[in-house]
Amino acid sequence: MDAEFSSRDSPTIWFVEQITPELLQSSAVRRIICEVQTPFQSVQIIETGPFGRSLVLDGKMQSAEADEWVYHESLVQMVMMAHEHPQRVFIAGGGEGATAREVLRHASVAEVVMVDLDEQVVALCREHLPNHHQGAFDDPRLALCYADAVAYLREHDATYDVLIVDIADPLEGGPAVLLYTQEFYRLAASRLAPGGLLVTQAGPIGPLDVTEVFTAIHRTMASVFDHAAPYGAYVPSFGTAWGFVAAGMADAPRLAALTPVDVERRLADRVGPSLRYYDGPAHAGMLQVPKYVRDAIAAETRVITDANPLFAV
Amino acid sequence: MDAEFSSRDSPTIWFVEQITPELLQSSAVRRIICEVQTPFQSVQIIETGPFGRSLVLDGKMQSAEADEWVYHESLVQMVMMAHEHPQRVFIAGGGEGATAREVLRHASVAEVVMVDLDEQVVALCREHLPNHHQGAFDDPRLALCYADAVAYLREHDATYDVLIVDIADPLEGGPAVLLYTQEFYRLAASRLAPGGLLVTQAGPIGPLDVTEVFTAIHRTMASVFDHAAPYGAYVPSFGTAWGFVAAGMADAPRLAALTPVDVERRLADRVGPSLRYYDGPAHAGMLQVPKYVRDAIAAETRVITDANPLFAV
Amino acid sequence: MDAEFSSRDSPTIWFVEQITPELLQSSAVRRIICEVQTPFQSVQIIETGPFGRSLVLDGKMQSAEADEWVYHESLVQMVMMAHEHPQRVFIAGGGEGATAREVLRHASVAEVVMVDLDEQVVALCREHLPNHHQGAFDDPRLALCYADAVAYLREHDATYDVLIVDIADPLEGGPAVLLYTQEFYRLAASRLAPGGLLVTQAGPIGPLDVTEVFTAIHRTMASVFDHAAPYGAYVPSFGTAWGFVAAGMADAPRLAALTPVDVERRLADRVGPSLRYYDGPAHAGMLQVPKYVRDAIAAETRVITDANPLFAV
Amino acid sequence: MDAEFSSRDSPTIWFVEQITPELLQSSAVRRIICEVQTPFQSVQIIETGPFGRSLVLDGKMQSAEADEWVYHESLVQMVMMAHEHPQRVFIAGGGEGATAREVLRHASVAEVVMVDLDEQVVALCREHLPNHHQGAFDDPRLALCYADAVAYLREHDATYDVLIVDIADPLEGGPAVLLYTQEFYRLAASRLAPGGLLVTQAGPIGPLDVTEVFTAIHRTMASVFDHAAPYGAYVPSFGTAWGFVAAGMADAPRLAALTPVDVERRLADRVGPSLRYYDGPAHAGMLQVPKYVRDAIAAETRVITDANPLFAV
Repeated sequence: MDAEFSSRDSPTIWFVEQITPELLQSSAVRRIICEVQTPFQSVQIIETGPFGRSLVLDGKMQSAEADEWVYHESLVQMVMMAHEHPQRVFIAGGGEGATAREVLRHASVAEVVMVDLDEQVVALCREHLPNHHQGAFDDPRLALCYADAVAYLREHDATYDVLIVDIADPLEGGPAVLLYTQEFYRLAASRLAPGGLLVTQAGPIGPLDVTEVFTAIHRTMASVFDHAAPYGAYVPSFGTAWGFVAAGMADAPRLAALTPVDVERRLADRVGPSLRYYDGPAHAGMLQVPKYVRDAIAAETRVITDANPLFAV
Repeated sequence: MDAEFSSRDSPTIWFVEQITPELLQSSAVRRIICEVQTPFQSVQIIETGPFGRSLVLDGKMQSAEADEWVYHESLVQMVMMAHEHPQRVFIAGGGEGATAREVLRHASVAEVVMVDLDEQVVALCREHLPNHHQGAFDDPRLALCYADAVAYLREHDATYDVLIVDIADPLEGGPAVLLYTQEFYRLAASRLAPGGLLVTQAGPIGPLDVTEVFTAIHRTMASVFDHAAPYGAYVPSFGTAWGFVAAGMADAPRLAALTPVDVERRLADRVGPSLRYYDGPAHAGMLQVPKYVRDAIAAETRVITDANPLFAV
Repeated sequence: MDAEFSSRDSPTIWFVEQITPELLQSSAVRRIICEVQTPFQSVQIIETGPFGRSLVLDGKMQSAEADEWVYHESLVQMVMMAHEHPQRVFIAGGGEGATAREVLRHASVAEVVMVDLDEQVVALCREHLPNHHQGAFDDPRLALCYADAVAYLREHDATYDVLIVDIADPLEGGPAVLLYTQEFYRLAASRLAPGGLLVTQAGPIGPLDVTEVFTAIHRTMASVFDHAAPYGAYVPSFGTAWGFVAAGMADAPRLAALTPVDVERRLADRVGPSLRYYDGPAHAGMLQVPKYVRDAIAAETRVITDANPLFAV
Repeated sequence: MDAEFSSRDSPTIWFVEQITPELLQSSAVRRIICEVQTPFQSVQIIETGPFGRSLVLDGKMQSAEADEWVYHESLVQMVMMAHEHPQRVFIAGGGEGATAREVLRHASVAEVVMVDLDEQVVALCREHLPNHHQGAFDDPRLALCYADAVAYLREHDATYDVLIVDIADPLEGGPAVLLYTQEFYRLAASRLAPGGLLVTQAGPIGPLDVTEVFTAIHRTMASVFDHAAPYGAYVPSFGTAWGFVAAGMADAPRLAALTPVDVERRLADRVGPSLRYYDGPAHAGMLQVPKYVRDAIAAETRVITDANPLFAV
């Protein structure tokens, strides 16, 4: 029996995401692949008309086949390319396997430690999102661990060239709240090898939502690291532009120091022509954020701590 | 893996049915059980929060676990109870098996011939809608045939005590158009045994939609049969009140002649206490339709023919 | 400037009513006529494609031009016709003026006292819902008072032949909660003249929502009055079938005692041919509710009191 | 009477825009300010919760108070700043007055000719969108003309330093189709003064919709002009990232030649600190589009002509 929807005049099943209480994004559903309540969160894998196969956690779109490459290349390649020679990489979260996929494109990488809280999410993604992970889970360089990333980093004193935070937004009561605090960034900084870089997804960066969590995350990181670069990319399935912050200590390269020509050369050397969103011009373009982003960053005063966490809408 | 949705704050997947282009009914989806395009129609079996497991054909709700008993008892029991001694019953359509279920409650019934166009629909209902058919498909008195009901009746001259039309609305291009015409009712009348009754679902009977198809179907039946009784019941999953017409020749009993006390006695004799919607008072109440229905019937002039068919919205 | 929407391919503005958290009814909006927050409630008067001009209180449809006659004739005419000679009528609520309109059709009526909490609602309805009130507010027999109906009845010991409760559902925190309690019905009973009847709107009566408030209201009334008759009508703009309960002491006529022929005669004598929903057959039909309603009533144990009020969803 | 919606738990009135047949964006409506059918198009001015006062033409969001500055600064300031000394400016469309507002910030500008097809749209925007135009319509340097911009340019041989196309997407049957063709760009090129620049809005530029019209518009412009620079900005109320193309002949400056430092100096000299989206880094950032945009441009073969126009979805 074919459970896939035939194309028909007008869609009958819709995935409705509340971007804010007054703004909804609705996508026609082709297929509901699975729905599970894990100990940590509600998980849905659905296939929508506009966005293909998508992972939805607690009702929020995490990544979709049709545009996950915008998100994952932006998250991963900016720091991977800026780093002189990334060999050991840590991923907090990243359940779909697409962040690992981007990291593993780099021949220099010898070891990736991926720590995700939710074994069921990873198993479901591995089974149902093949275009996301593209076999990354089978790469022998990947060590997968199911644990709280904060606890893991506390308990293990290994250091990494690149540390990538690819987790859900800090929803109140959700599992991600303590991975956006000053305490976490201090811990993460202590786990960076010399010249190491950290990057995190950092919530929406659009003109109407940049101050929701993005500017506070940036300011918190800037209070710990010697440099912290904000950048963004438009991800349609998220219903808004998405922000990232890359940071490092004084010994680490600044992303803006890399020219488009440098990027193109490193891309050719390290990865080859496989990317769709990221290249030299994109590297430069993403870092030159609109004025409102810089104004909002300048006006931000919040620093997120374990005692005063920040919650996304 | 559990594919059922956990209850959560606010539903994310919705079934949206266009009742009219300006009126939508949206139900939270718990599970999409299957979706198939058959040679005849698009078929979805879904489980919604308000209505449970539901059969949807060409985007239109056909019947739902939570209130199918309103529809099926209304469709079947009015004529079954009015008939003196129903032994042979014909069902056109009825793919869910619930119409057969209602017929087979009657111990007097020796044979039910059910002719549905779409074998796949019947197979899917049999597998996925157990609360609809409740084993009716296994009853040895049921003969199931996959064919066009018009062609079947033309080709077989057997007669029936009760003939039940339980098919989709006459959507343009859909398979049901020719089962609402004068020609069909003449054919059906010729297949009624002496004292036999025909009943058909007849589209919405609400104050805003009674003239859409209901009054035309009634008038067409009244042009063929000696008596034709309109009645209705409110079926929430349809998003409106639903109409039926029961008809017969002069030799057949009139539904209105049966008093509530008669109904109760026949119910006790024939069926027992298993019904939820239909009983003596309900029998009388359904037949005493509101004034606007009788006014709309009186004003109707359309007669539906094969050459001038009527299409539902 | 014409503020009315032109008909166009596909509606862009919608009124979405949450019938339940898992069931929505959406109507295309032609025009938003006004929106006001009064001391008591939020008020919207909108014009929708399916239902015309509509009064919405606290997000809930109260009555719509296209089908308010179903509701108002059902609410008013059952008791008005059952009463031997209604002269003095009390209306609790009824802000649209349509309940008064139905009462004032009766030549026997000498005085109508209408007590509505919210002067702004009445003023807005008077200005913007002319097809609802049809001039009823100008009838010299109508005395309009802005007050809490419970307080008014406590403070005035006048008695009435018919007492009509036409208020919003008992939403938690809303103004209507104390007009559905045993204490209120005792007070109302004491304000009925000999042979007097009370009727109240009583929430949904559909197969999925009959036990929400309807059966509890019925049982509470039955604990105070000598007879209490449940009945219902399908009102499309409410997204469900709607229930009413009419009650009286032993000296008051029972609604079911009136035959269709009686109704027709009284209609001719008292009102003339102006009604659209109500007549002799409709009177009988409404009272003969489906079996599930009677079963749900029989199973109900809740009695609503001021100390233990009931809240609608 | 206050027609504005009070904030309440859950919105009841929504503006639903079909971004594609399978993707909807819904915004809570605070107020419908007007709705008119003009000889050219359907016009709605509404106030939504997320986006404030918004102009909607033929059901499509044109610009909204909350983020129109992203669109209008991006459209106007890139070419205005790149031009050596803009004195005479032509605007095709621009009914809201916000494009004129951006142009008139420049002290160098002596004359703006704005040609909009639809006088009613301009009058409605002037009355109801004060935060869009901010008084631009009262500036004595603005000459406003109601005509078809193609006809106007054909009939007048005046030339301009900057020519700005700020019109609706080329919807089939809509008024904008012939302002995206090779013939139009040739005409426009002939109306540029030496060193003159043309810029047009060019439809969505997101990863899923960049090939809808954007790449074809770019290629068509590149077939006429000596250089044509694609760039984009994310505009939330449009439900996607938005594209622009700026073009000129060999005598005109290239936008990419302007460094962030140049931009900052010109901004200080010409405009002052009033902008919110555009500045030096933003100028550079917008031009460095993601790789997928450049790949899609490279793969594009369509050239739009009057005989073979292109229609947006």
